[in-house]
Amino acid sequence: MAKQKKEPKPKALPPKGFQDYFGTDVSERTKMLHQIADVYHLYGFEQLESSAVETVEVLGKFLPDVDRPNEGIFAWLEDEDWLALRYDLTAPLARVYAQHRNDLPSPYRRFAMGPVWRNEKPGPGRFRQFYQCDADTVGSASMAADAEICTMLADTLERVGILRGDYIIRVNNRKVLNGVMEVVGLLDPMNSERFTEERGIVLRAIDKLDRLGSVGVRQLLGTGRKDESGDYTTGAGLDGAQAEIIIGFIGALGANPSETLSNLRTLVKGSVIGETGVDELEHISNLVTAQGYGTDRIVLDPSVVRGLGYYTGPVYEAELTFEIKDEKGRPRQFGSVAGGGRYDDLVKRFTGQEVPATGISIGVDRLLAALRMKGGIEKPPLGPVVITVMDRDRMSDYQAMASELRTAGIRAEVYLGNPKNFGNQLKYADNRKSPIAVIEGGDEKTAGIVQIKDLILGAQLAKDATLEEWKARPSQIEAPRQELVAQVLNMLAAQGLTE
Amino acid sequence: MAKQKKEPKPKALPPKGFQDYFGTDVSERTKMLHQIADVYHLYGFEQLESSAVETVEVLGKFLPDVDRPNEGIFAWLEDEDWLALRYDLTAPLARVYAQHRNDLPSPYRRFAMGPVWRNEKPGPGRFRQFYQCDADTVGSASMAADAEICTMLADTLERVGILRGDYIIRVNNRKVLNGVMEVVGLLDPMNSERFTEERGIVLRAIDKLDRLGSVGVRQLLGTGRKDESGDYTTGAGLDGAQAEIIIGFIGALGANPSETLSNLRTLVKGSVIGETGVDELEHISNLVTAQGYGTDRIVLDPSVVRGLGYYTGPVYEAELTFEIKDEKGRPRQFGSVAGGGRYDDLVKRFTGQEVPATGISIGVDRLLAALRMKGGIEKPPLGPVVITVMDRDRMSDYQAMASELRTAGIRAEVYLGNPKNFGNQLKYADNRKSPIAVIEGGDEKTAGIVQIKDLILGAQLAKDATLEEWKARPSQIEAPRQELVAQVLNMLAAQGLTE
Repeated sequence: MAKQKKEPKPKALPPKGFQDYFGTDVSERTKMLHQIADVYHLYGFEQLESSAVETVEVLGKFLPDVDRPNEGIFAWLEDEDWLALRYDLTAPLARVYAQHRNDLPSPYRRFAMGPVWRNEKPGPGRFRQFYQCDADTVGSASMAADAEICTMLADTLERVGILRGDYIIRVNNRKVLNGVMEVVGLLDPMNSERFTEERGIVLRAIDKLDRLGSVGVRQLLGTGRKDESGDYTTGAGLDGAQAEIIIGFIGALGANPSETLSNLRTLVKGSVIGETGVDELEHISNLVTAQGYGTDRIVLDPSVVRGLGYYTGPVYEAELTFEIKDEKGRPRQFGSVAGGGRYDDLVKRFTGQEVPATGISIGVDRLLAALRMKGGIEKPPLGPVVITVMDRDRMSDYQAMASELRTAGIRAEVYLGNPKNFGNQLKYADNRKSPIAVIEGGDEKTAGIVQIKDLILGAQLAKDATLEEWKARPSQIEAPRQELVAQVLNMLAAQGLTE
Repeated sequence: MAKQKKEPKPKALPPKGFQDYFGTDVSERTKMLHQIADVYHLYGFEQLESSAVETVEVLGKFLPDVDRPNEGIFAWLEDEDWLALRYDLTAPLARVYAQHRNDLPSPYRRFAMGPVWRNEKPGPGRFRQFYQCDADTVGSASMAADAEICTMLADTLERVGILRGDYIIRVNNRKVLNGVMEVVGLLDPMNSERFTEERGIVLRAIDKLDRLGSVGVRQLLGTGRKDESGDYTTGAGLDGAQAEIIIGFIGALGANPSETLSNLRTLVKGSVIGETGVDELEHISNLVTAQGYGTDRIVLDPSVVRGLGYYTGPVYEAELTFEIKDEKGRPRQFGSVAGGGRYDDLVKRFTGQEVPATGISIGVDRLLAALRMKGGIEKPPLGPVVITVMDRDRMSDYQAMASELRTAGIRAEVYLGNPKNFGNQLKYADNRKSPIAVIEGGDEKTAGIVQIKDLILGAQLAKDATLEEWKARPSQIEAPRQELVAQVLNMLAAQGLTE
């Protein structure tokens, strides 16, 4: 028999760009997803969990902002099919809707939440697996569907703990931009679906408004712009009057919706597509206003340009408006946590039929980060009460204590490591962030008592207590064994850890 | 410019062996996972969500019951690494523990829930992506860890709705079987970790007890057995006395734990490993009994053989004992919904260090199926109240109604399809399983009223009502507009749909 070659030890690491989530990282996200699902469900949306794996042909080149087919995904050949991990929740929705369209209600409101995978270069804060949480209405061309998505998004943000005033949902419309481009002369007069090549440059220029300001955008709309590094970007070649109309579109936000709408009507005058777009915005504005969602929550804002190249009608973006400090300590707004819009060609690839659809995607991790920064997430739950082990032959006594505490709804566990070194047990309780340790040695057992140690107070006292404070509030009490649960509840209440 | 080739339409299907889950399929599972997480958390376990993708070297050939390395998984080459989807939650736990062992508490109690992927031939009810829900304690050699897993499993089953008496948790121990094999002469006398080749045949024979009965198992332990199709399976070649000892092990269940333990002690007499195994079983039995978990919930049962080849010490299995009908209408017990045991070589592959570990895995989909059969899941929640659209220019009126209902906690939606054909709206409400439809045409608007239609009662009346019943309880009522919410709540209450 050949001697078996000894294999080298595998590295204990996840693949590059992947990470693990521990304890409260998971439970906080779970809780938030649960809250979001509650709101979506209340609005009549049905949950869908599609498979994580799809055929590559189903995914197609649907990835927004990426022109390269089959790049950006994790794919492999299985028998004769190329399979891949989904990169978003929209492509699977298109497949599911095309597959089940005869059985699904029409319109079909669905929501979905789960991980997606991107085969991109990982970087700080950029992972190759992350959560998305989407809601879409498929099969309705009505602006009421878009308005509903916006009000639902507002309700959702408030449900998870973002205060009114700390967020704004901005609405724009691709058709208005198309109308502006038509007026400027960038639309092919023979085919209102086609633009001249300059359109791409204009879209990219508009997209840089935040970074370059209107002067930079004007340069890019005109002859071009040289950046700080000396690199030159060719412009769209618009003349001054043309550029002014584009800039006018971005800056068309008025003091109230009717002023904004009137500014836009003036800009797109003569363009059928542009006027349709303004009508759509007006319709959405009227619907959300009638439901009591004022401009403090949902606002028409032509400066929203993200996604305008991808969506076909209304575009929405939810921004958190409170200030945070960036890496360099400068104040800035937290920014976008959700975005979406109308895309009427969702199912066409599969069936040839055009099916109108509109929806949003919430960036779960960013929203969670925002809540953590704002303190919208309650203080991290502490660890369990730890029952220490003084006598390894009396494990059933200790298990019984844990059992009694759990029956009272208190998280509790018995130390299961080697009990020889008591210091290790307290170190363990520390690592577990335990609020309380329970001690019952042989003497206590005989006397029918237990020691209950307040680990939070203990840590505070150890840090900065006067002698009087030490005496006034001892961090360890002795209690009759049968009072264990009551005394632990008291101590948790004193620690502010019960309702 | 070359003419672009028109691509064929992609098939709207998931890959073979994958499926989608809709509505209550998802929410029922989510609810169950939440309940399980509650119990695990109460016991001091911390949630871990590891990445879905691992390197193939991390997964190793850990797959239980499969000897072929790298088969059974979905794997692909990415740059220079082979990556793969995890096939269970145990291999990732080993990797995470090895990676973070200096920071994690020791012992480390963790639970994990999520999909796993198996590259196996799909079949009826056998999917290539399914959920697992695991709890493991890493770093404790104490039988108290095993006892805790068993009591926690009992609590978990009751928490999700399995009644006491409808389940039993059986505990066996691999070391006892090893002891029996040693006594029979199948253990290599020079290395207690090694068995002669017959051991595999004995394990497989024992595993067939359910199917073949003790006569069939006796044949397989002896010279061999011809099955109904005429196929011949070679036996382990044990003589009558040897086979009797093995059969004695399987049948060693006594009337109570001490009788079972005494039977086992007799069988393994003289084998150190066997006696250790019996001691371990006794320890577990004492601990769970002291906590009040009697043999109606947790029982020592030497006939549990599943997993004995994989685990290194105690083995547990949770079975549901109520009867169901099989495909042929014959009564049988529902069977296993969770299994686990102790495996002390979990982390060794990574670190060279032996780290004791014990845990269970719940078959989420089987447990969910059991609850559905037993009616342990409340009646499927009905669809939303549907506000029909009689006048498409008054969408904001309808949205306002939906909004009011939602504020009262009632799931509600406005019909968003083409409102022209009212029959389609009622068909939609039917597809949505709506309990109630609300109607407000022009006349109602003028009169300040709404029509509220009881769709459940309507369906019942349409089926089998007498004229008197029709009159006694009209399926549609007229109410002042401002009483909409109150009247809908009344109707839901009459339908038994509110608490």
